[in-house]
Amino acid sequence: MTSPADLARPDLDDARQAYADLKAAGMSLDLTRGKPSSAQLDLAAALLTEPLTDHRAADGTDTRNYGGLTGLKELREIFAPVLQVPVDQLIAFGNSSLELMYETVAQALLTVMPGAAHRWADEERVVFLAPVPGYDRHFALCEKLGVELVTVPMTADGPDMDVVEQLVAGDPAIKGIWCVPKYSNPDGAIYSDEVSRRLATMSTAAPDFRIFWDNAYAVHHLTDTEHEIADVLALATEAGHADRVFVFGSTSKITLAGAGVSFLGASQANVAWWLAVAGKRSIGPDKTNHLRHARFLRDADGVKAHMRKHREIIEPKFAAVEDVLSRNFADTPGVSWSQPRGGYFVTLTVPDGTATEIVRLAKEAGIALTPAGSTHPYGEDPEDRTIRLAPTFPVLDEVQRAMEGVAVCVKLALVQR
Amino acid sequence: MTSPADLARPDLDDARQAYADLKAAGMSLDLTRGKPSSAQLDLAAALLTEPLTDHRAADGTDTRNYGGLTGLKELREIFAPVLQVPVDQLIAFGNSSLELMYETVAQALLTVMPGAAHRWADEERVVFLAPVPGYDRHFALCEKLGVELVTVPMTADGPDMDVVEQLVAGDPAIKGIWCVPKYSNPDGAIYSDEVSRRLATMSTAAPDFRIFWDNAYAVHHLTDTEHEIADVLALATEAGHADRVFVFGSTSKITLAGAGVSFLGASQANVAWWLAVAGKRSIGPDKTNHLRHARFLRDADGVKAHMRKHREIIEPKFAAVEDVLSRNFADTPGVSWSQPRGGYFVTLTVPDGTATEIVRLAKEAGIALTPAGSTHPYGEDPEDRTIRLAPTFPVLDEVQRAMEGVAVCVKLALVQR
Repeated sequence: MTSPADLARPDLDDARQAYADLKAAGMSLDLTRGKPSSAQLDLAAALLTEPLTDHRAADGTDTRNYGGLTGLKELREIFAPVLQVPVDQLIAFGNSSLELMYETVAQALLTVMPGAAHRWADEERVVFLAPVPGYDRHFALCEKLGVELVTVPMTADGPDMDVVEQLVAGDPAIKGIWCVPKYSNPDGAIYSDEVSRRLATMSTAAPDFRIFWDNAYAVHHLTDTEHEIADVLALATEAGHADRVFVFGSTSKITLAGAGVSFLGASQANVAWWLAVAGKRSIGPDKTNHLRHARFLRDADGVKAHMRKHREIIEPKFAAVEDVLSRNFADTPGVSWSQPRGGYFVTLTVPDGTATEIVRLAKEAGIALTPAGSTHPYGEDPEDRTIRLAPTFPVLDEVQRAMEGVAVCVKLALVQR
Repeated sequence: MTSPADLARPDLDDARQAYADLKAAGMSLDLTRGKPSSAQLDLAAALLTEPLTDHRAADGTDTRNYGGLTGLKELREIFAPVLQVPVDQLIAFGNSSLELMYETVAQALLTVMPGAAHRWADEERVVFLAPVPGYDRHFALCEKLGVELVTVPMTADGPDMDVVEQLVAGDPAIKGIWCVPKYSNPDGAIYSDEVSRRLATMSTAAPDFRIFWDNAYAVHHLTDTEHEIADVLALATEAGHADRVFVFGSTSKITLAGAGVSFLGASQANVAWWLAVAGKRSIGPDKTNHLRHARFLRDADGVKAHMRKHREIIEPKFAAVEDVLSRNFADTPGVSWSQPRGGYFVTLTVPDGTATEIVRLAKEAGIALTPAGSTHPYGEDPEDRTIRLAPTFPVLDEVQRAMEGVAVCVKLALVQR
């Protein structure tokens, strides 16, 4: 029903007509998750098709049998420089770095970690800082394990350190902070050296405070500049806080998303603690997959060369997102978006109170977007303004069409306010 | 130094001389762990050498990408009859069933499981029953997670159910029992239908009592009789205790020890609870390995056929153990041993107070045996009489030589008493 007030609003009519046309087109497109596309996975086809005839590791280990809890050394050697962790402090494990993060939190809840007075399950409260916008799965695992989340604003250089320093200095219940230090999920931020230094050196009320440094996009560049970040583990160690940092990474977005290898790096004390529990949990990771990966990637330069092939596939998709957004919203107040230099996401910021409506409109038109709020703990974006776009999985043409559709939805939501 | 009392004991002289000869032989042999031999792993060479060119599952899933938390259906279909779990209640996951058991205990500690009043971490005490002799890694993970272990004697038909029933009926802190129902580790017991029925139907003071049914050797027969056990999940369900049972299994001793696939089966409520946590922990198992396994094993008959090849390799090794023991100790009071009809172990029972000494003597002679006591919680066999022998990993000639050496050590320990 058209209300009298609407009669004098041709912009609303246009927006409604465009949306009606969008719905009529009957799309079925998905920009929800940061998944590699089929073409990206094809880059690692050799992992699945090259016979692993010689199944011995460099040190003679039969990779088919039990054992080898720390993971294959030749693979750890490749990723030690990539993840800025000394090889002897780097563990290679299963197919999921999320699993290593979960296990680390769960282990800290159930066994006393270095520097801790109690296991965290026996603490009154356990709180992690959640820079927002952030990665929904970091938050979800904490929620499931009963770890409270307190939000901290992100800046272009990383979390707002004035806020972080004040919080951690004052509250011993704050035991950790989630960090995606390079090409952050979802806003593409690159932590400045100053932010890393402050994280590594700040005073914390909790003696067992930990930085969960999820370097998920260490080599996932979208531009010619292969950005570097500070070596937070070294900085913390120099500052006398060697046990403060857990570094995580994986090849999920390098080789095969579901069949890659994950990594955990930390101080010797942390690694010993972690392995002491892991040794009761598992008889070791799948070393055949480690060996396949080591042979396929060869060395850190091999990783870089491989990532350039990914960039060739996904850079045009990010360019399509940028193109649609800048053509449609360059002059729209309240609408802005990140221009990531790497990683897997674009953050679209819309006027307060419209994100949920935009995602709903898109869904009705057959375009799946990550639910509004998923970039925040408990799924609640208090300003309802953050939308995460993930353009890697669909083919380029679909990204373009989906983004044109998103633009229609944004415009309708704005004029309908 | 020969004491006067020894002068009249030529048996002691003989035993000492035999042991001196054994040491002089400078052996380096290992009967410690239940690991498949290289020849057994070779049986699954195709898993590593056949190209996985078509990486699509039967339902079209791209096995290379994220997702698929329950595991590949075609693989679950193969193992549903093997593990006696309806396919929709069977999860296929990573390379380690131990990991699934650990996660299940850890999850129960950290989140409220079906039927539980609290998460176990908030209980005063959490106790599991440990039938002894039993599997050291079951016990070790409980010890690490703060779960107390109370021993229950094993019989040839499974745990002594009179003892079990009395304990679980009287103490709500008793939350679980470890069971290896077929070809039990280490004594080779096969649970009788009656034992399974009593486990499934008994009254427990804890509403959230669980049977950890580690069917590790479901198809690992050593004789022509492929023994069957009762379907404990069905029995419990019929008795109104559907949530009582967690079934575990893996292909570690079917395909590749370090690169196989593990399984968890349970009631729908338990599976939903387990997946709700697993979905926060992981983005899914390595489905490429699931697909390789499904294509390699084909169906439950394919599994059986494959296991007959294992039997050809390992049955002679078990025969060698039996041969040495029966030749040396058929008439020795206090010495007995299991005659397993499947599985990976022989339990050698020696006179009280001699197991540790025998293991020590063997070690000094270059023969590694599993530490005495490892078949019991906290590494303490109160009678010091149980030695677990694992003959699968060494080649046949080594098994024979190692067992001849073990016989020398047993004899010396006995005459030295």
